[in-house]
Amino acid sequence: MIERLRVEPDGQGLFEVTRAVAGVVSRASVGEGLCTVFIRHTSASLVIQENADPSARRDLERWLARLVPEEDALYTHTQEGPDDMPAHVRAALTATSLSIPIERGHLVLGTWQGIFLWEHRHRPGIRTLVVHVGG
Amino acid sequence: MIERLRVEPDGQGLFEVTRAVAGVVSRASVGEGLCTVFIRHTSASLVIQENADPSARRDLERWLARLVPEEDALYTHTQEGPDDMPAHVRAALTATSLSIPIERGHLVLGTWQGIFLWEHRHRPGIRTLVVHVGG
Amino acid sequence: MIERLRVEPDGQGLFEVTRAVAGVVSRASVGEGLCTVFIRHTSASLVIQENADPSARRDLERWLARLVPEEDALYTHTQEGPDDMPAHVRAALTATSLSIPIERGHLVLGTWQGIFLWEHRHRPGIRTLVVHVGG
Repeated sequence: MIERLRVEPDGQGLFEVTRAVAGVVSRASVGEGLCTVFIRHTSASLVIQENADPSARRDLERWLARLVPEEDALYTHTQEGPDDMPAHVRAALTATSLSIPIERGHLVLGTWQGIFLWEHRHRPGIRTLVVHVGG
Repeated sequence: MIERLRVEPDGQGLFEVTRAVAGVVSRASVGEGLCTVFIRHTSASLVIQENADPSARRDLERWLARLVPEEDALYTHTQEGPDDMPAHVRAALTATSLSIPIERGHLVLGTWQGIFLWEHRHRPGIRTLVVHVGG
Repeated sequence: MIERLRVEPDGQGLFEVTRAVAGVVSRASVGEGLCTVFIRHTSASLVIQENADPSARRDLERWLARLVPEEDALYTHTQEGPDDMPAHVRAALTATSLSIPIERGHLVLGTWQGIFLWEHRHRPGIRTLVVHVGG
């Protein structure tokens, strides 16, 4: 089973999609299986991170923004704006696809794990994730 | 088929789980398929790396520890200890899930590839991996 | 269904394999499913990146080469050449496996997404990818 999820981030940051992905798994009605989340973009990515304390996510974002800043004399690919090339680098360092086993109908996420879309651009527009559930 | 693996790292570093994962694949008795390893934590991760020379693994650990040090004025998420926030960052830069094809009943790992749990905390306690084998 | 792809990079850089992977998917003749690409090496990796403007890929390569340079007093694993240890680090920071859903017989890649082998060594020889297509 495949479903597409549309997410509309209002800027850079981590946007939780755990509930939306779990909804697809629930509709698939499989007892045991594998759920794969794929993002159809190269300037946004996926990450599984702590869903409890927002300060952990904020630090994570700020850390990556410092490692891959917008201002960098190295970049030659600049015609799509100053946030485009750093967005590609940040996406390459994180995940484009994530696979999570399903047990007794539920994702086997740990207690503190959430699934997040990691938006790397300032004005991204709509982002599409594709969720596949297999047996 | 799904099985959980428990690993008890005695500190930071790479802990090989290739044999344990191969055991699940063997018990699943599939000729051809896909094995997915998932880690249920956000301060430890997965990596496939060289299984031959331990110096490569040590250098890898030291490299990441230098890129993401414990002491960093950027961190505000500090109440769980000085090794918690760097552990989240290190986990975000590496893998939470890995998928390896199975051919003639065996993982198609390269000669020098081993599957490792990468522990990022000093006193982690027990870690749980979930291994899914599908057709 | 499983197929192996052989790629012969002529040095470091991103080598597109989208067409070759799509060929496996086409031969598998599944309407809906999941395609997983796995690389059997620890000094080369996989990445999904922009397939349009080559300047984005060049900047990506140069960025990672600057983050993980060949010259680094940290390395002790040096007997396989000055490009070996940085290759392991670069591979650990990027992907060893990628999973892409299949819908109506085609990979659901975004318009600007290409699948690339990211070669991290200067004289790599032949590299092997394993492509699994499941239901």
